[in-house]
Amino acid sequence: VHLNPRVAIVPALSVLLLGAWALQARQGTQRPPRDQVPRFTQDGALIRPEGWEAWVMVGASTGLSYNDPPPPSATSAPQGPGMFHNVYMQPWAYRELVRTGAFPEGTMFVLAFYEPSRKATPARAGFFEGEQDPGIEIHLKKAGVDSTGWGFYGFGDSTRTAARIPSVASCYSCHAREAAHDQVFTQFYPPLRARLGRSAP
Amino acid sequence: VHLNPRVAIVPALSVLLLGAWALQARQGTQRPPRDQVPRFTQDGALIRPEGWEAWVMVGASTGLSYNDPPPPSATSAPQGPGMFHNVYMQPWAYRELVRTGAFPEGTMFVLAFYEPSRKATPARAGFFEGEQDPGIEIHLKKAGVDSTGWGFYGFGDSTRTAARIPSVASCYSCHAREAAHDQVFTQFYPPLRARLGRSAP
Repeated sequence: VHLNPRVAIVPALSVLLLGAWALQARQGTQRPPRDQVPRFTQDGALIRPEGWEAWVMVGASTGLSYNDPPPPSATSAPQGPGMFHNVYMQPWAYRELVRTGAFPEGTMFVLAFYEPSRKATPARAGFFEGEQDPGIEIHLKKAGVDSTGWGFYGFGDSTRTAARIPSVASCYSCHAREAAHDQVFTQFYPPLRARLGRSAP
Repeated sequence: VHLNPRVAIVPALSVLLLGAWALQARQGTQRPPRDQVPRFTQDGALIRPEGWEAWVMVGASTGLSYNDPPPPSATSAPQGPGMFHNVYMQPWAYRELVRTGAFPEGTMFVLAFYEPSRKATPARAGFFEGEQDPGIEIHLKKAGVDSTGWGFYGFGDSTRTAARIPSVASCYSCHAREAAHDQVFTQFYPPLRARLGRSAP
């Protein structure tokens, strides 16, 4: 078969498109999008993720103590309910949990803190999430970082990277002892409780 | 140019792939995924969306009154902080808001309710989200349903569809009067406040 060069380019384009198509389809079911992949410095510190506020929020709480929460600021409501804590995980990891019942390697939980604020208007009782504390904490599933298979990382106000919190910290032993599912406090997270078939304590 | 039939199929495949590719690329930037599109019955009732628990959670609150919240059940903690309210929006609509500064037509906010539960163990102060109330409320941006351009819908425990709440209801006038951005209480939602350049009241 003799091919015109302008025709020969079509099979080449087709192969390229097919490859990209297959890659994207595979990413949709198994591999995380690039912005949901944990990234590390050369010496193993975790790089602060971006965009987690749009990840899957698995549970909010008020006034709970978790792991060295930041001190309440001067803008806290007096005698309020304590800080709001929201916990987020990657949408990819959530889909994988739903699909397989297990947290995939690379799962990250982001713990974020918000001042309790009183609703100014319309004037009613209750509290909503005010200023976000700039610090976040992360719980990362990564084989080998600790005997539990998970590591904790704390990011200060403007910290771009965080070394892993050493395994002697109480967060490791507390999660190992109290977590309902693979080091994670799923007992406090409604959508994870629902998926894993557990009820609230 | 004479083409072998086996070669002729390649351009056809290429066109198909290119079309599907372009469609998907367009969906990624502009059009919502199918499971984020509001769907209606023939008589205009909203069909209850699925999977909203994995949408973008824009704000949690405790003890706020919004629009006919369900009565607290017997499992409520006595003298607790009141129900947790979480508000979710479609990831597609969130991306569009970030990109354009406006809520796209078809934006839905889902208001969900959770009982306040005390952390049983590890024993500490505070409350987390316990049982989810099966009812949800939805605020939908849809031209023509009301003079504000938005409609409210209430779904009971097992309700699959909901007619729009009539425009005389107080939710419409309250949102028109108090909302910081296009009928939405963005003043209470940290990531939307951040995107729209407003601070907490």
